[in-house]
Amino acid sequence: MSDAGSGTLPRPRVAQLSAEVVDSNPYSRLMALQRMGIVSNYEDIRSVSIAIVGVGGVGSVAAEMLVRCGVGKLILFDYDTVELANMNRLFYRPDQSGMSKVEASKRTLEAINPDTEIECHNYNITSLDHYEHFLGRVAAGGLPAPATDTVATKAVPITLVLSCVDNYEARMAVNRACNALDQPWMESGVSENAVSGHIQLILPGRTACFECSPPLIVESGVSESTLKRAGVCAASLPTTMSLVASILIQNVLKYTLGFGTVSYYLGYNALADFFPQWAMRRNPVCGSRVCRALQQKHAAWVHPEDAAAAAKAAQATESVGAVVGAKDDEWGLEIVGAGDAGTVAAAAAAATDPSAAAAAGTSAKTGRGLLFEHEPSAPADASRAACNGHDDGGDGETVEELQAMLASLMGGGGKHA
Amino acid sequence: MSDAGSGTLPRPRVAQLSAEVVDSNPYSRLMALQRMGIVSNYEDIRSVSIAIVGVGGVGSVAAEMLVRCGVGKLILFDYDTVELANMNRLFYRPDQSGMSKVEASKRTLEAINPDTEIECHNYNITSLDHYEHFLGRVAAGGLPAPATDTVATKAVPITLVLSCVDNYEARMAVNRACNALDQPWMESGVSENAVSGHIQLILPGRTACFECSPPLIVESGVSESTLKRAGVCAASLPTTMSLVASILIQNVLKYTLGFGTVSYYLGYNALADFFPQWAMRRNPVCGSRVCRALQQKHAAWVHPEDAAAAAKAAQATESVGAVVGAKDDEWGLEIVGAGDAGTVAAAAAAATDPSAAAAAGTSAKTGRGLLFEHEPSAPADASRAACNGHDDGGDGETVEELQAMLASLMGGGGKHA
Repeated sequence: MSDAGSGTLPRPRVAQLSAEVVDSNPYSRLMALQRMGIVSNYEDIRSVSIAIVGVGGVGSVAAEMLVRCGVGKLILFDYDTVELANMNRLFYRPDQSGMSKVEASKRTLEAINPDTEIECHNYNITSLDHYEHFLGRVAAGGLPAPATDTVATKAVPITLVLSCVDNYEARMAVNRACNALDQPWMESGVSENAVSGHIQLILPGRTACFECSPPLIVESGVSESTLKRAGVCAASLPTTMSLVASILIQNVLKYTLGFGTVSYYLGYNALADFFPQWAMRRNPVCGSRVCRALQQKHAAWVHPEDAAAAAKAAQATESVGAVVGAKDDEWGLEIVGAGDAGTVAAAAAAATDPSAAAAAGTSAKTGRGLLFEHEPSAPADASRAACNGHDDGGDGETVEELQAMLASLMGGGGKHA
Repeated sequence: MSDAGSGTLPRPRVAQLSAEVVDSNPYSRLMALQRMGIVSNYEDIRSVSIAIVGVGGVGSVAAEMLVRCGVGKLILFDYDTVELANMNRLFYRPDQSGMSKVEASKRTLEAINPDTEIECHNYNITSLDHYEHFLGRVAAGGLPAPATDTVATKAVPITLVLSCVDNYEARMAVNRACNALDQPWMESGVSENAVSGHIQLILPGRTACFECSPPLIVESGVSESTLKRAGVCAASLPTTMSLVASILIQNVLKYTLGFGTVSYYLGYNALADFFPQWAMRRNPVCGSRVCRALQQKHAAWVHPEDAAAAAKAAQATESVGAVVGAKDDEWGLEIVGAGDAGTVAAAAAAATDPSAAAAAGTSAKTGRGLLFEHEPSAPADASRAACNGHDDGGDGETVEELQAMLASLMGGGGKHA
């Protein structure tokens, strides 16, 4: 842990964000989002607190974006040190080699914006004692409302946890903590071959938790450690890492400031510039008892995609021959809204990956021959059928076939680490 | 101009990129792209030279990505200085306030990777004498092959020009220079309301040049200067800027290293996480005489999308009942390839923006009621129908209606600057 200040400030802290258009105002172009009608109250960002687990190629860039946006508080977790081998991604500089990543991050971020409070922890959240401390910081590390004469300051949870790690074990630790606290979080990842990635919003008990649909490789019982071989390293690109950080923090801004449509799952395939989107549904037979209990707690929750589909179906019944319908006719086009863009993308993804179709499928849309991910079945089968948005199969092969595929994957790219 | 060295190197320059997996090797994760089968010869990056016009929110991040990838040479053009008002995007730091952007960039980039040669020019390329110098650097600023006993070193053009500017005049200057030299370039832009952006690959005489389909606001005769009002500034976000830089440099890597599918136009709508893709066709009645002459020179060039569509049509005739067809049947799904993802996106874009459909349309795909952008018509009509990928109409309104829309846009967001 290193919370000590890092010397002189690059500029005085500000009491309130200004919208004044002068060269010396670091917030003028953010406050302009209000004048443009995008955000109703940009200054809400100052009460937002974010925990970032993993400040590598994605997490460090995500942290810098949040700091430049003027987020109220960041808590960073990592146990790695900066190396020259990290220089192919943005953020760290060669002169920081050998420093802990959290300490290097804190110095860089404080030099960029002194208005953001930065707390950092140089440890591995998956070790038992550190896990408990991590859990405590998520539960009570948020920015409390100021105390008044009648109301004392009390600890509040942080707004969102962002998982920016490169391994399954750390993701499961984040998942367990967020399930335990009913804490919203976002998952992110980049493939070992550097040309695909994804982000996912997880609302415990409402959307799929990380254990609701584990990666195939985990389900098959292969030890993750066997994937790491001496003299072999994953490829990475600054472009893919920064793109994933960009869609992640854009989603954080939309979620916390309340504008646009928040994505539940957004993928990125760099080779084809393809961006699949779909909803990952909660799994009634999830391996996590805590998740299943949260599903009971949030049983009444309706997925926004279902609500939108229901509203659209109701509207379609009423609007035949209305103005939109007329324009429709004139151009021979079907009018689609923002939600439909996701549906189109999901349908395209489904065409190449039936397990993705299962994740995206609803009663009205599921194609012939597809099964629901969440139709009650034996737990082992249900989780075997689920595939956490990866490209690695899952379309009906036997366990032996899947293991053969895994063996070939272990020799090449494609795993989202 | 400032080409002087900036002091001691962060590490010694390397003679050759190493694939060795050690913490001290800054190229190990890039060279791993070869082992993963993504890139056939990553070291080709060292012979790539890129000119970046505008090192603001997109250009500076693009430059950093290229330097971290180990690109051979960068030439940077900008005439602006770093201000605190730029701190809401990545790259510049508060302690650089007051420095020229090119000088600040050069120092930061050289401290990251001494293997990239950085040349910078602190001037406005749109002024007459600087334009001539700019043209000369594009024509002769590339990395020459080493001289041998029999062959002298000769000047070569740079590999690609990247336009990362925020105004029409500068884009037109880049367009004029690249048409004059038959020089491939990529255009990029972010909207004034900070929530959309685009990139575009321009191969003079083959794809649309910037003048082939000018922005509507230009076509309508509104002076760009009237868009800039005292006390008003455009909004910007580090997320959107970095995402555009990411897709731009990913496209540069795909184009120069020969992997994946290069995008001709890729848009980004942050509110809906929607990424439209389409081809921008050359305009036989383009206002640029030089462009029209280049179209004659490259008359035999076939757009890759047309070639793919033709190949697919031929294959479809042959493959009925083949293996793919059988799987198709089992799942009730249609197999689509990477090219189709773009078609799906374009179709979705077309549904909300008929001018986009016109840009994307081919004979086989164009819906009822749509017109081709390139069907011969009076020049004024042809260019009025073209819309440079913007969201601002173009679907059959009268000039008066369009001007009313422009007036409302001038009071709000939506213009890609």
